[in-house]
Amino acid sequence: MKHWNTLKPGESFVAFFLIRRVESKTTSGGKSYLDIVMGDAVGEITARLWDSKQEDALRFTNNILVKVKGSIVEWQGKKQVKIDKIREAADTDGVSIQDFVPTAPHSPQDMYAELLAYMSRIENDKLRETVALLIEEAGESLLIHPAALQNHHALRSGLLYHTVTMLKAGEKLAQVYSFLDTDLLFAGTILHDLAKLDEIKANEIGIATEYSCQGQLLGHLVQGILKIEKAARTVGLDEETTLLLEHMLLSHHYEPEFGSPKRPMFPEAEILHYLDIMDARMFDMQKALSETEKGCFTDKLWTLDNRRLYKR
Amino acid sequence: MKHWNTLKPGESFVAFFLIRRVESKTTSGGKSYLDIVMGDAVGEITARLWDSKQEDALRFTNNILVKVKGSIVEWQGKKQVKIDKIREAADTDGVSIQDFVPTAPHSPQDMYAELLAYMSRIENDKLRETVALLIEEAGESLLIHPAALQNHHALRSGLLYHTVTMLKAGEKLAQVYSFLDTDLLFAGTILHDLAKLDEIKANEIGIATEYSCQGQLLGHLVQGILKIEKAARTVGLDEETTLLLEHMLLSHHYEPEFGSPKRPMFPEAEILHYLDIMDARMFDMQKALSETEKGCFTDKLWTLDNRRLYKR
Amino acid sequence: MKHWNTLKPGESFVAFFLIRRVESKTTSGGKSYLDIVMGDAVGEITARLWDSKQEDALRFTNNILVKVKGSIVEWQGKKQVKIDKIREAADTDGVSIQDFVPTAPHSPQDMYAELLAYMSRIENDKLRETVALLIEEAGESLLIHPAALQNHHALRSGLLYHTVTMLKAGEKLAQVYSFLDTDLLFAGTILHDLAKLDEIKANEIGIATEYSCQGQLLGHLVQGILKIEKAARTVGLDEETTLLLEHMLLSHHYEPEFGSPKRPMFPEAEILHYLDIMDARMFDMQKALSETEKGCFTDKLWTLDNRRLYKR
Amino acid sequence: MKHWNTLKPGESFVAFFLIRRVESKTTSGGKSYLDIVMGDAVGEITARLWDSKQEDALRFTNNILVKVKGSIVEWQGKKQVKIDKIREAADTDGVSIQDFVPTAPHSPQDMYAELLAYMSRIENDKLRETVALLIEEAGESLLIHPAALQNHHALRSGLLYHTVTMLKAGEKLAQVYSFLDTDLLFAGTILHDLAKLDEIKANEIGIATEYSCQGQLLGHLVQGILKIEKAARTVGLDEETTLLLEHMLLSHHYEPEFGSPKRPMFPEAEILHYLDIMDARMFDMQKALSETEKGCFTDKLWTLDNRRLYKR
Amino acid sequence: MKHWNTLKPGESFVAFFLIRRVESKTTSGGKSYLDIVMGDAVGEITARLWDSKQEDALRFTNNILVKVKGSIVEWQGKKQVKIDKIREAADTDGVSIQDFVPTAPHSPQDMYAELLAYMSRIENDKLRETVALLIEEAGESLLIHPAALQNHHALRSGLLYHTVTMLKAGEKLAQVYSFLDTDLLFAGTILHDLAKLDEIKANEIGIATEYSCQGQLLGHLVQGILKIEKAARTVGLDEETTLLLEHMLLSHHYEPEFGSPKRPMFPEAEILHYLDIMDARMFDMQKALSETEKGCFTDKLWTLDNRRLYKR
Amino acid sequence: MKHWNTLKPGESFVAFFLIRRVESKTTSGGKSYLDIVMGDAVGEITARLWDSKQEDALRFTNNILVKVKGSIVEWQGKKQVKIDKIREAADTDGVSIQDFVPTAPHSPQDMYAELLAYMSRIENDKLRETVALLIEEAGESLLIHPAALQNHHALRSGLLYHTVTMLKAGEKLAQVYSFLDTDLLFAGTILHDLAKLDEIKANEIGIATEYSCQGQLLGHLVQGILKIEKAARTVGLDEETTLLLEHMLLSHHYEPEFGSPKRPMFPEAEILHYLDIMDARMFDMQKALSETEKGCFTDKLWTLDNRRLYKR
Repeated sequence: MKHWNTLKPGESFVAFFLIRRVESKTTSGGKSYLDIVMGDAVGEITARLWDSKQEDALRFTNNILVKVKGSIVEWQGKKQVKIDKIREAADTDGVSIQDFVPTAPHSPQDMYAELLAYMSRIENDKLRETVALLIEEAGESLLIHPAALQNHHALRSGLLYHTVTMLKAGEKLAQVYSFLDTDLLFAGTILHDLAKLDEIKANEIGIATEYSCQGQLLGHLVQGILKIEKAARTVGLDEETTLLLEHMLLSHHYEPEFGSPKRPMFPEAEILHYLDIMDARMFDMQKALSETEKGCFTDKLWTLDNRRLYKR
Repeated sequence: MKHWNTLKPGESFVAFFLIRRVESKTTSGGKSYLDIVMGDAVGEITARLWDSKQEDALRFTNNILVKVKGSIVEWQGKKQVKIDKIREAADTDGVSIQDFVPTAPHSPQDMYAELLAYMSRIENDKLRETVALLIEEAGESLLIHPAALQNHHALRSGLLYHTVTMLKAGEKLAQVYSFLDTDLLFAGTILHDLAKLDEIKANEIGIATEYSCQGQLLGHLVQGILKIEKAARTVGLDEETTLLLEHMLLSHHYEPEFGSPKRPMFPEAEILHYLDIMDARMFDMQKALSETEKGCFTDKLWTLDNRRLYKR
Repeated sequence: MKHWNTLKPGESFVAFFLIRRVESKTTSGGKSYLDIVMGDAVGEITARLWDSKQEDALRFTNNILVKVKGSIVEWQGKKQVKIDKIREAADTDGVSIQDFVPTAPHSPQDMYAELLAYMSRIENDKLRETVALLIEEAGESLLIHPAALQNHHALRSGLLYHTVTMLKAGEKLAQVYSFLDTDLLFAGTILHDLAKLDEIKANEIGIATEYSCQGQLLGHLVQGILKIEKAARTVGLDEETTLLLEHMLLSHHYEPEFGSPKRPMFPEAEILHYLDIMDARMFDMQKALSETEKGCFTDKLWTLDNRRLYKR
Repeated sequence: MKHWNTLKPGESFVAFFLIRRVESKTTSGGKSYLDIVMGDAVGEITARLWDSKQEDALRFTNNILVKVKGSIVEWQGKKQVKIDKIREAADTDGVSIQDFVPTAPHSPQDMYAELLAYMSRIENDKLRETVALLIEEAGESLLIHPAALQNHHALRSGLLYHTVTMLKAGEKLAQVYSFLDTDLLFAGTILHDLAKLDEIKANEIGIATEYSCQGQLLGHLVQGILKIEKAARTVGLDEETTLLLEHMLLSHHYEPEFGSPKRPMFPEAEILHYLDIMDARMFDMQKALSETEKGCFTDKLWTLDNRRLYKR
Repeated sequence: MKHWNTLKPGESFVAFFLIRRVESKTTSGGKSYLDIVMGDAVGEITARLWDSKQEDALRFTNNILVKVKGSIVEWQGKKQVKIDKIREAADTDGVSIQDFVPTAPHSPQDMYAELLAYMSRIENDKLRETVALLIEEAGESLLIHPAALQNHHALRSGLLYHTVTMLKAGEKLAQVYSFLDTDLLFAGTILHDLAKLDEIKANEIGIATEYSCQGQLLGHLVQGILKIEKAARTVGLDEETTLLLEHMLLSHHYEPEFGSPKRPMFPEAEILHYLDIMDARMFDMQKALSETEKGCFTDKLWTLDNRRLYKR
Repeated sequence: MKHWNTLKPGESFVAFFLIRRVESKTTSGGKSYLDIVMGDAVGEITARLWDSKQEDALRFTNNILVKVKGSIVEWQGKKQVKIDKIREAADTDGVSIQDFVPTAPHSPQDMYAELLAYMSRIENDKLRETVALLIEEAGESLLIHPAALQNHHALRSGLLYHTVTMLKAGEKLAQVYSFLDTDLLFAGTILHDLAKLDEIKANEIGIATEYSCQGQLLGHLVQGILKIEKAARTVGLDEETTLLLEHMLLSHHYEPEFGSPKRPMFPEAEILHYLDIMDARMFDMQKALSETEKGCFTDKLWTLDNRRLYKR
């Protein structure tokens, strides 16, 4: 059976979808319809349920898994779904919601193991224990938390994926710039965005839903520093190392207007910033280009200062 | 006896001074001399000790109290002192170094009592106890600490003076904008710069000497938040109030480029910023104008974006 | 009878409204309807008049007082009015248009009296007479003029309310910063926005409608200076005081990009700016928070650089 | 006799100079000397009077015309004058101070006549009379006033030179952009900097000395508007034309950060700005290049954003 | 017969139009209609074809010339066309597509001749030959190419019109600033935007359609430099002149954020920038004002930093 | 024998130095002396030659190798050399100038071989040949050219060192971000600064002396593009690859204000920028920290936005 993504106008299908956003609208004739954005792990599409009833609007809401019978229609040059039948997925359907969420390309368990491996290479015992304590406190949610509401790495397990890729790149650069202290580099990388667990609320399937109250008022840089301070005091980490680690968090956004009141003041803090920004940029570029044809430009991308990218 | 500040070229005097800055220079003939900036609580003047010896340079250093016999000479349109005799002040001279440092215009004890009075008006018990704990920890140094290395309120007791004046102005504004919560306003004001005790090192006579290591790497906003977090946990202050107080500290510089990653998100945080900046500006303006003649402009003042002020 | 603001979907009512904005739209079936925003002093709501005729569009225009029979419906999560009957209010209805406009919380007569009281405390006779002449020329319109088209204090009597609140706050701050000259402070505050009477056109019920031609080409800072210059010459105010007053107007927006080619050059001009900005911010914050629930954040507020505020 | 400007180290000369700046210095041996910058209409040079006496410092001050006997010496790669004899010029010397000031390349009388000719071509009688009244009030000082303290056209008659050159260029451009109204263009150009007469104080030989008090507090844009307002009222110029003229003054610096709170809102105002900036740039560039050798770059020029210019 | 532009609601007409933009929309009843923006050389208007069929959407696309029978209706205060009949124009209709495109006000042949005349006045043979070679390579497309996708001079022959007007203004200014080298000025002006032929794709009727790949990746400044380098090498132009010409291209946008990595470093490069910006501004202003009534303001114009213009 | 760098005041030595900068000064007594900054590959120090003669100033100029007999003195807290004897180094001294210039830490031959090895891994034949042609044209000067006048990598062989380190880091990152095209990455890295050979003049010992004329007027980004265009045409490289390579050069400074009119539009261009900036920052940080004591801060570093760095 062909995936709905490859069908042409006129073709019909039956498939499961996760509802991402719904809006209840009305025609000028006064009839209600639902404008639904729905998708699976591969992509997403707009669908319309005409002549919807009030209970439809109540039932088909964000993050609900549904079974849809529909057909592809063309609307202003884009494919769209005209829904013929729709119902909530049932346990007996044998589908699982997490298969319908955009997800990091590696298993969270594997990535978690990689992170622990980097952590175990921190030689300063107290520093390693501080990191370990914080990772332990983070618990299960680290396995699925996304890294953002809608920017780079807004994927299930996006935070872990982002962190582990940075650890790999940091390890490589430390081979070239051999004066870098890998203890600080690994610890700082592992912890740099960990407080996003507290800054951004996510649901149990790894979709970010909103900023927390503390996240809005303090932000994950300061939240992370508060976590480090507490863990370091519990473990007994020396003051200088604690301070350097806190500075790495505080400075990793680099520019005041992006949230860092201090710029990096030693090489490991400097490199942490570049690891972070490069990984975000590579993710965004790869994603945008994967949806573009060879020899063409993408649309303007606001995450990249409205640049348009060229696909070789 | 006339104060040296009022003497004319040609007149002689004997007086005590605190040495503020010294530079050892040499004439083209190869002779050494000391270029000294020295002063008392009223003002400062440049002096020259010609034909100085190596031991002079070692003895007459920053923050040393000296007795000088000299005369006023004119040098490129400015008055200067030609030193005839100079020696370190002795215990028997009956002078005390703190009388020679620019100092807040009120007694530190009185200001401290005022601060405690405002503190006692905080109605939320846990909040008041949190503030009290931090004030207690600050100890004696709050009595003399300056508020800056060289900006506004770089005076002995400058930090206390700045804080108490802001409390008075805040109390007044809360009478006009009666929806303001004075608990938060008083607590936030008392604590807003308290971590300058940790950010800026000062000597025992209330002169700031340099930034501390932690001060450079984190800054007094984040340092203050760490202090509040710890004290609030000790006292058992509720999470919301702790968070609001921490946000007030984080946002009181208002602009990212002045160190606040978050702008104020409720009225008391907003007003705290204006109390701070108004008090700094009033201090700087009053000082600059006090040294200017009626109907004239001051020099360009870098603390005021290079404005020149007009003296009515 | 319950106010329409508290009714639930399905409930009907009869009430008077002031029409704020109307748009004539058409359904895809080609039928016309009116999309009306209407309100009273308490709030506003969107309403729809289906199957409207051409004369409806001509009759029901901005700032018309109407009597509406309708019912509450829910539209995309918001309450809306479905209009059953609508007619213009008649003299016999005994309603008065000014009761339907958002209005400052104090009576204009009381605020005017307060303003005159502050004016009478200006000790320099010529300065007081200059201010008095300008207030006299302003005439009745000062009683109802709003302070803006859509920013802070866009209320009937908003200009007066803003000015009087600033006078109160200025009086308070002058008690703390006692070197401030209250003559200049009171005169500058009374006059700082007076030329908004010329910059912004308002109708007879105190709603700003558009910028005047002179307002667009010069702006109320320069317009105000032209007024002061003329009044000062008529009264015979000395040149220095005239100049200081003109500078206060010119500099009160502080930053070039907000319209001030000169920054404040003496303390009274400096404080005038802070009185102005604080009062605007307190107004905007109080208004936004009054419409928000405890423990939540407001939407992004563009008058506050897109900040979201937290409601304690 | 060769001009001193062309002499080589070792050669002697006798010549008259205008003293531009003097500083009294002292050698380490305690001997006084004067460090003098002196020049004539062609150029300027540094000179030293060794072993100077107190009366020398009092006599040889800024803007004094002197007769000097001296020789050229080389000092750190630059030519300098060693003064052998110096005295104040006497009436019997037959030299006139204005021959020693950098001066516009055309006679002020000729330029003044050109300005009047452009003025006479303004067809709107009231507008022409308004301009004429202001030119009349300006009086003699317009003939010699410089356009700046130290920027472009800091020459005797610099203001007139700048204005007349702009009139010529404006006339030319109006031939290409024929929809431009030359009445407004000529009037606006003649008046655009006229208030520099009030903003900048100059001495009787056409050298700017300092900003006036009103100049500092208001600036020549607002000062010019006040002048126009008064003259227009005297003459009875219609309100629209007065307003357009005032707007041209207010907007001619174009950017808020350069002093214009409003950007140009009609073509004549827009072109006025470009006439102004082009004339300033052409003046500065021509001057800098005239002092540079072919194929080389000038030093960094701060009036041109630190650009270095290339001399063809 | 009256032009459709002057008809009132209710009046009918038959006329030819060029379709500029089309959008296929659907009513809530599910019926399709086309929303068409169509125009001729004089102006443009929105039209609706109700009950459109799929083949209509395929046939009536951008840049198609059509014959329309319709009537004027009023829609939300604006005139609109209700289409009764529409068909593609046929050869037998005797209309030519180029009469329906906004076009420069002078004949391209005349303007081309003017450009060649300016070119022939370049005295340096090699420089003239370099320019001639590039103009020759440009070929026919220079006659019709627009200067932009949607900014100033987005007209058929807009590039030529812009260039020739700048040449005229440059010639005039060189009469006032006689030290300017007209060889460089004419050559630089002729070539400054020539690479827009490569940067912007245009169709055969002179409407810009999109940026080329090379245009996006390099931009017309660098593209122009590559063209000059090649032509100069072919002709044998000396290195210094080649370099100066290349610098003029590189610097003519003046500010880094507008694409110039270097600011102008000699007077001809400086003036080239002002010729360019003045011509763009005069074009935009004249166009916006031509559509505005006397005594009123235009809407905010984004090409002019959101200024509103005043029409005298 | 101890290196002069480790001697204390009072100790004497004989050593060779390269003169870096000389200034001829005079004492107030009228006696000349030379103020010399001299150094070797390890460091530099200020020295004074008292009672210098005119021929001394002519003989001891920049980049002259000298033999000095002197002693260490202390001057305002810093060590300085008092020169007793000084003469130019002779052939018979057996010292070689290149041993006295700060130099990259690897042999130029080794680094050159590494660069060629990376080049040989470019798989696209035409691309590799284009790079090879440009490297061949660069010739010997690539072995010693510095990368800057006074910023990062202002060392002999600095350009080569910078390029090779970036190649290594780029190779590593391409292992993590495996979608990167190493052909483009290696080619772009090798060529990104190659035109500094033309932008910056350096002498035969690898010290940058000044910007070239073309360097000032175009800059190494545009200069590099001109070189690539020519080489690509010679070799017959396809247009798309040429264009991508040119874009990489044009965009590698990233921000318009740092000279890039276009931001990177594909991942290899993006990464090239980060390789460049990271290598510059690591170099500057390592250098600054190598001269600082543990636990202290460096001075403010202007190459790092005036940050002070912390030495662990």
